Amino acid sequence: MRATLLEDVGKIALRESPDPVVQRPTDAVVRVTASCICGSDLHPYRGKVPTAFPKRVGHEFVGVVEDIGDEVTTVRPGDVVVAPFLISCGTCRYCRAGLQTSCENGSVWGTDDRSGARSDACQGDWIRAPLADGTLVRVGTELPDALLPDVLALSDVMGTGHHAAVSAGVGPGSTVVVVGDGAVGLCAVLAARRLGAERVVAMSRTPSRQKLAAEFGATDIVAGRGAEGIAQVAELLGDGADAVLECVGSQESLEQAAAVAHPGGRLGCVGAPLGNLPLGLLFMKNVRLAGGVAPVRAYLPELLDDVLAGRVRPGRIFDLELPLDEVAEGYRAMDERRAIKVLLRP
Amino acid sequence: MRATLLEDVGKIALRESPDPVVQRPTDAVVRVTASCICGSDLHPYRGKVPTAFPKRVGHEFVGVVEDIGDEVTTVRPGDVVVAPFLISCGTCRYCRAGLQTSCENGSVWGTDDRSGARSDACQGDWIRAPLADGTLVRVGTELPDALLPDVLALSDVMGTGHHAAVSAGVGPGSTVVVVGDGAVGLCAVLAARRLGAERVVAMSRTPSRQKLAAEFGATDIVAGRGAEGIAQVAELLGDGADAVLECVGSQESLEQAAAVAHPGGRLGCVGAPLGNLPLGLLFMKNVRLAGGVAPVRAYLPELLDDVLAGRVRPGRIFDLELPLDEVAEGYRAMDERRAIKVLLRP
Repeated sequence: MRATLLEDVGKIALRESPDPVVQRPTDAVVRVTASCICGSDLHPYRGKVPTAFPKRVGHEFVGVVEDIGDEVTTVRPGDVVVAPFLISCGTCRYCRAGLQTSCENGSVWGTDDRSGARSDACQGDWIRAPLADGTLVRVGTELPDALLPDVLALSDVMGTGHHAAVSAGVGPGSTVVVVGDGAVGLCAVLAARRLGAERVVAMSRTPSRQKLAAEFGATDIVAGRGAEGIAQVAELLGDGADAVLECVGSQESLEQAAAVAHPGGRLGCVGAPLGNLPLGLLFMKNVRLAGGVAPVRAYLPELLDDVLAGRVRPGRIFDLELPLDEVAEGYRAMDERRAIKVLLRP
Repeated sequence: MRATLLEDVGKIALRESPDPVVQRPTDAVVRVTASCICGSDLHPYRGKVPTAFPKRVGHEFVGVVEDIGDEVTTVRPGDVVVAPFLISCGTCRYCRAGLQTSCENGSVWGTDDRSGARSDACQGDWIRAPLADGTLVRVGTELPDALLPDVLALSDVMGTGHHAAVSAGVGPGSTVVVVGDGAVGLCAVLAARRLGAERVVAMSRTPSRQKLAAEFGATDIVAGRGAEGIAQVAELLGDGADAVLECVGSQESLEQAAAVAHPGGRLGCVGAPLGNLPLGLLFMKNVRLAGGVAPVRAYLPELLDDVLAGRVRPGRIFDLELPLDEVAEGYRAMDERRAIKVLLRP
């Protein structure tokens, strides 16, 4: 089969890779029908994080089960499934607590699993899914093509935006600021509104992203950054927001997020942190902070119900669709911010 | 009257200062019967924070009301009162929400108040208490001397330790680690047990403080620091604690605190932050963080009930009592860690 490899900084290639087979009784083998490129895939692509090359890449997919191991009970061949961006067992104490990102038996797509079996990443034709019962979520026996992007968005960005909102305690009537207009930030707008937020300020300076933020329910757009952006939020909200959803993780965005929460407010952080938190400012204001790597698996069933019923349409974040063999162009488009998020079809 | 001044780094002096009088209709004038030295007073004393000298110091006191302004209704001359370490109005939206540390009309003892009237600090003979109804808490018409240290501890350290525990969500059955064996850390042990914690690990390497931690209800003592301390906690608690109470604020203690929380755990931070939080570690584990400058005023009535009934005895953190004219020796004793906390009587 074909699989995407990051061979060096900035160098994406589609290469032949061994066809996956069931290696453990808890495995499923899935034919990928759609995968996508994540903002976090850009970190190694840009050389922003230490990376061992070549690296198998991609951690989001929707597919059809082709084969299962003897112990798999929740999916069967022919089922359409969606996977979260991490592999988890579903049975350890952290999985039972809804924190599958801390699974005691979990692993990462593209990194060989804890039993030593080779694990594929998701930007490819096929994939071996370890711990299939814990990891995969059954969508049904078929999935209308119009809903495929929405379901695919649940594998990471929508669940992650939702985690930001849940972590920041967004509920009916909340006033919210979303820092970051990437796919996760835009999904955070959608998630905040879905949870009942009354006012959602999206911080974005790109017209196409501002437009999508408004479609997702943002009530206000703030185009400024840094001190200017903070002042613009203050004009709208006075002391600041009840809940701030930090969906970037850079030094600038962490500072922005801390500045726009009112005293006693809450920060939901889902941007992989590459900066330092202005702890003194949070401390003076008694601003709470929660979040982290999103336990998307915990949220998938609930969000999938809404997606299949057409109540939320997170798939609109995909503004570029490419065949898998143009994956390198997909990375370039996201790196250059020509695309918010790229959907790949094998 | 006499008032303590920090005249330069390491230079404490008792100097003559104008006798306070009622300047605003919301003022009370209080004769101080006991004040004390705070760990945070050591920051400017040691030159660790930018400071304008001379600085009036002290932000904790118990006293007797001598005079009140026309608008004061909750205390009257002759009443014994205790004050939190910040001045607050009691009526703004933050005060009503129990976050008096973000009071819109508040100020700091020893810094002239928002109306421009001179404000005294607390290590002195007398004090003008602005916004008396919002700030002062009436203890009664008398206070047995045996309970005075316990009531005085409510002005800061016990309320701050309690805030750490509340912020970290300590409740019945919780497993807790307390980082820091200063007066606040020791009070945090007491507060965690008062809230029902089942297991409280106190990190302390000083025998006298270990002893007091045990008297306050610590079930385990860990003497190690850094990697050694983290390993010792892991031996006791496996993955870590439900709740970690960070009562120091240094780089080392913030790292220690982040390391000993289990995935999904909670950090209650009350140590004034002088370091950076290891955000990546918290992010991977989805550890929540709350806390900050403690709204001691919000907790005072509840804690005072317990103190007056003899149910909690936080006053045991005072292990040195001096007359006010030996205040300089009190600072030296705390700076050299010869005393946990010093009580001063005018």
